[in-house]
Amino acid sequence: MKFYEKYRKVVECNNSLVCVGLDTDPKLIPDFLNQEPDPIFAFNQQIIDATCDLVNAYKLNSAFYEAGGSRGFETLKKTRNYIPSPIPVILDGKRNDIGNSSKMYARMAFEQFGFDGITVNPYLGGDSIKPFLDYKDKGIFVLCLTSNPGALDFQMHGDPPLYIRVAESVNNWNTNRNCGLVVGATKSELLKKVREVAPDLILLIPGVGAQGGKAEDVVKYGGENLIINSSRAIIYASGDSDFAQKAREATIILRDNINRFL
Amino acid sequence: MKFYEKYRKVVECNNSLVCVGLDTDPKLIPDFLNQEPDPIFAFNQQIIDATCDLVNAYKLNSAFYEAGGSRGFETLKKTRNYIPSPIPVILDGKRNDIGNSSKMYARMAFEQFGFDGITVNPYLGGDSIKPFLDYKDKGIFVLCLTSNPGALDFQMHGDPPLYIRVAESVNNWNTNRNCGLVVGATKSELLKKVREVAPDLILLIPGVGAQGGKAEDVVKYGGENLIINSSRAIIYASGDSDFAQKAREATIILRDNINRFL
Repeated sequence: MKFYEKYRKVVECNNSLVCVGLDTDPKLIPDFLNQEPDPIFAFNQQIIDATCDLVNAYKLNSAFYEAGGSRGFETLKKTRNYIPSPIPVILDGKRNDIGNSSKMYARMAFEQFGFDGITVNPYLGGDSIKPFLDYKDKGIFVLCLTSNPGALDFQMHGDPPLYIRVAESVNNWNTNRNCGLVVGATKSELLKKVREVAPDLILLIPGVGAQGGKAEDVVKYGGENLIINSSRAIIYASGDSDFAQKAREATIILRDNINRFL
Repeated sequence: MKFYEKYRKVVECNNSLVCVGLDTDPKLIPDFLNQEPDPIFAFNQQIIDATCDLVNAYKLNSAFYEAGGSRGFETLKKTRNYIPSPIPVILDGKRNDIGNSSKMYARMAFEQFGFDGITVNPYLGGDSIKPFLDYKDKGIFVLCLTSNPGALDFQMHGDPPLYIRVAESVNNWNTNRNCGLVVGATKSELLKKVREVAPDLILLIPGVGAQGGKAEDVVKYGGENLIINSSRAIIYASGDSDFAQKAREATIILRDNINRFL
């Protein structure tokens, strides 16, 4: 099944635009989990069990797993495999390289780990992203406008600003309907400008919650086809043994808060 | 020891500006190595043994190791550890994310794997690169102008073009003398422009050899402080049992070809 269809199906089924980001930091999980053979996996399992009927996707931030070396990569794989198959799982790896190497990154994400989607960085241009796009059933989310203050350094460069140029290009690459854009929720007023040049693309929107982005603005300017990610505000809603229940409650609140504005 | 000092020392000692890129593809190594428990590591060991007195650095392209999953990450670590300690080893990972996540990538590269340097992507701006720069003894190589045709898509955007804006910024971030730039050899005439705004930074220059960059032009426009990388033209100089000897010969030819123009 194509990424887009899988995504639409779970949006309908769970009535949700929320994506839970499993940016699991071993230093921030409840202490009692450290007696488990793989504490991060044990944490992720409980978060997934508690939220999988409330989300439209999961996003796994590769950095947090890589920091644990090859063992962390094992945890990444186990976590991906634990997520029920109807739900799209995105590797947030922000990968990019020349074509020869991008091919290997795509092989890693899609063949070795079986992710449904990946985030990629546009700096190296179209030919560096093509090896990802060649996987027609996957979702390729290209960084456009990010949620951090440093987004202003280069993404606003030029006229039209670089992020608009990127959005236009990705919109042109979408011949197989497998492209999306990453647009930070903290700059929601600019979402409108992205939507003007990329009306149909799925927008992956990080930055709601801990980073300060507002659900109302995201829905107002982002329109349809959104994957609204929240990581820290959900998975660390409690640092105690009730962490999974509190994550569930935080997900419900965010989901309903978004749905109110649809 | 700071990256810059380590780099200068090995440049003097080996009289070389050549970096060998260990972009080791399991499909391209000689067949007989497949009887080894870790064929890629066996290949890398022989390449390193045959070239370590001829180089100023090794560059390990993360994509090629990640494509093998957690086992590939193990090979990455073993390879890094096998390289003699005086020689700087760069993880070519082109990583970048918001600060919170970049910190994890830096921890992976420098603490988990012990690399001396890393390549990073500038798209997310200064605050996304700061967690790497906080490691004052490491070498942080920021993508500036890449060697692929798609480099024209976004790196030339604006006036001044984005790559110049990036070079200027990185030059300003170099307060701890731990910054460098990645500038593709295939666009050597533009090296001159990069040098004008970043006169002292170490330039990591891929694209000599298989990608068509010329050593003469690189030296002419790049000046001092170069790490000139060649991967495929060296490590696959022969596909037979003499691959290590042929890699040595190819490295000598490239080194001498560069040194002629100094």
